Amino acid sequence: MKTRASRTKESSGWQIISGGITAPQGYLASGVSAGIKKKGLDLAVVFSSQTASAAGIFTTNRVQAAPVVLSSENLKVSRGRARAILINSGCANACTGERGMHDSLMSTQCLASHFEADPSQILVASTGVIGSFLPVPKLLKGISAAVSALNSRGGTAAVRAIMTTDTREKCIAVEGRIGGKTVRIGGMAKGAGMIHPQMATMLAVITTDARILPRDLNKMLHHAAECSFNCLTVDGDTSTNDTVFAMANGASGALVGDNRSRSFFEKGLALVCEELAKSIARDGEGATKFVEITVGGAPDFEAARKVAKAIAHSPLVKTALYGEELNWGRILCAVGYSGVPFDPEEVTLNLNGIPIFRNGAPVGSTRARAEKAMKAHDLRIEVDLDCGRAFAKVWTCDLSHKYVDINGSYIS
Amino acid sequence: MKTRASRTKESSGWQIISGGITAPQGYLASGVSAGIKKKGLDLAVVFSSQTASAAGIFTTNRVQAAPVVLSSENLKVSRGRARAILINSGCANACTGERGMHDSLMSTQCLASHFEADPSQILVASTGVIGSFLPVPKLLKGISAAVSALNSRGGTAAVRAIMTTDTREKCIAVEGRIGGKTVRIGGMAKGAGMIHPQMATMLAVITTDARILPRDLNKMLHHAAECSFNCLTVDGDTSTNDTVFAMANGASGALVGDNRSRSFFEKGLALVCEELAKSIARDGEGATKFVEITVGGAPDFEAARKVAKAIAHSPLVKTALYGEELNWGRILCAVGYSGVPFDPEEVTLNLNGIPIFRNGAPVGSTRARAEKAMKAHDLRIEVDLDCGRAFAKVWTCDLSHKYVDINGSYIS
Repeated sequence: MKTRASRTKESSGWQIISGGITAPQGYLASGVSAGIKKKGLDLAVVFSSQTASAAGIFTTNRVQAAPVVLSSENLKVSRGRARAILINSGCANACTGERGMHDSLMSTQCLASHFEADPSQILVASTGVIGSFLPVPKLLKGISAAVSALNSRGGTAAVRAIMTTDTREKCIAVEGRIGGKTVRIGGMAKGAGMIHPQMATMLAVITTDARILPRDLNKMLHHAAECSFNCLTVDGDTSTNDTVFAMANGASGALVGDNRSRSFFEKGLALVCEELAKSIARDGEGATKFVEITVGGAPDFEAARKVAKAIAHSPLVKTALYGEELNWGRILCAVGYSGVPFDPEEVTLNLNGIPIFRNGAPVGSTRARAEKAMKAHDLRIEVDLDCGRAFAKVWTCDLSHKYVDINGSYIS
Repeated sequence: MKTRASRTKESSGWQIISGGITAPQGYLASGVSAGIKKKGLDLAVVFSSQTASAAGIFTTNRVQAAPVVLSSENLKVSRGRARAILINSGCANACTGERGMHDSLMSTQCLASHFEADPSQILVASTGVIGSFLPVPKLLKGISAAVSALNSRGGTAAVRAIMTTDTREKCIAVEGRIGGKTVRIGGMAKGAGMIHPQMATMLAVITTDARILPRDLNKMLHHAAECSFNCLTVDGDTSTNDTVFAMANGASGALVGDNRSRSFFEKGLALVCEELAKSIARDGEGATKFVEITVGGAPDFEAARKVAKAIAHSPLVKTALYGEELNWGRILCAVGYSGVPFDPEEVTLNLNGIPIFRNGAPVGSTRARAEKAMKAHDLRIEVDLDCGRAFAKVWTCDLSHKYVDINGSYIS
């Protein structure tokens, strides 16, 4: 991932560097085993040595996990300021009623006491089984251990602690210069939709040592998420726990305030978010293919993304990609029921650059070439609606036997 | 299916009888092998000895197959009158441009010439591979053979001829009395969403010997479909060819005109459509479970159906049902992202009558019983939103390894 990205994105003025959320200055992190999962790391803490501007984006699901409700409230109470983020895997603390809310609150109070911070400056996220309660004594003991383990290279342990059935660690860091000062943005993420039977959630944490006002950080994070995390789908199941946090602690001394620095910072943030989103699609449950769907010629971005998501959600398209079969009729069928108006006679469909359908009819001459292209691991589906100038990209994966294995036989 | 239905639906005044679309008087049908598929029956004709009132419901997909476009036009031109229906399997005649349109038109002209009828009184439907052209010479020869084979017990051959990878024939007939006369309604259907890789489509044909004005038949058919076929989902993929036809030829001499006869006829039509819809869900691709999802306490029918469909479309819910795992958090999660507003604290969730979730928390005491209930073949998921009095039922099946087999490795 890093090699590809650094080749293609250097022109933006941002350079990909090694590391993750602790690459920017003034952040410590840790990941410990608190015993919430049967084995392995399951508790992460991210700590900023100075109070940071903070922003959060949360699931749109009406059933929201306790930590989602609490973090959202905390960001309001603290007016977009935070000192630390606490994340556990192994238990989503969702559908747990008042007791779940109480457990989340207690965990933020416990962590805050270690830093002599206000509990409202602690953000919290959980991922794992829906409908079970947090093992509170284990959690509180784990928090102490995680605080003791905090260090400036702890990003690696932290990203491991938030994984559920992820098969790879997902982190990235970039470096650029603002006002003569070196600025870094780091990020980590977990998940692949609801990758595991009861292991819900996409989570992501972005850190930066730039100095940014909370309301600016919030705006930029929402914008970046719209074209990255919100363009990602594995199975179309929006979890009860989806959360993206961003912290900006100003430790680099570089101020992101004027239009020029903002525009530059946005590019770096977009790069971090897009690479994290793609890495989630690549690690989708049971994935054997990475699929980028580009829909162009649309009246607006929303319409383009709607069409791309209809394709990305279709079980028939996804199983065909898995089977490496050129069932392009399924792609056009999904475009047709997406709800976006267009003229089927004017649509063009390309696969990895090879024309498949145009002028209302199949392109017969490319069939053999296109069938061969289906064997590639990375697939690009390109649709042009010819009714506008907007476009959108969506990332997804195929639907394999292993997806059914993972999601159909977890307990047994 | 018949036994269950006749037990439960006798009170409506309609009795299930043996047979299908040729059970009502004045209908002939046949099914022949025209060589469109590699083997087996692939061409069906349904013929009414007198001109019948006719109605059709077609896919809402913007990419519409040629026969969908043509039949829709024919119903307008003929003002809702038809003599015959022509259906082929093995080729969807979708995404085939002008040539596809021409082929469909020619087939209706050919069939019309045999009956000295106007081509606009022929309805046509196709199901099968998207993006291939009809083998016209074979088709025309097949039409002659099908006309020669027409007979009053031909419903059985006809339903076989429209099957693709359906594993069972789906037909039903009911009998009731209107104005002292015996009236019958027959029906046949094929499909299970887009059951086969490129074998698209749900198709259904309803025949009756009642006398009904075209506009009344159209209205009643739409109403019946709304609570039956439109409450059915296998994989959420709306095909390019979905079609439901109804014919009413008046051969019984019974008039459906006043409110009382209309209301009675509607019950029979609803029974036929609902049983056909359920039989499609039961025969869903790779299905090992039949699932009925009831959402009640909703502000209106649309909202209730939206929630039920969110559950029915979730790959996570469907794989859990396949794995016989009580991952009820996934059901609540789908309710949450359905887009319908509700208070999560007030939702109740039952499985086969066993309470699982209420008052914002899991019902712990029923866990063992509910886990056992998951082993049943027929599953009832019941959600109450507690924000209204409307309800809806949706039928679906699980998502199994076999679904991926069927849809991922058709060509190879």
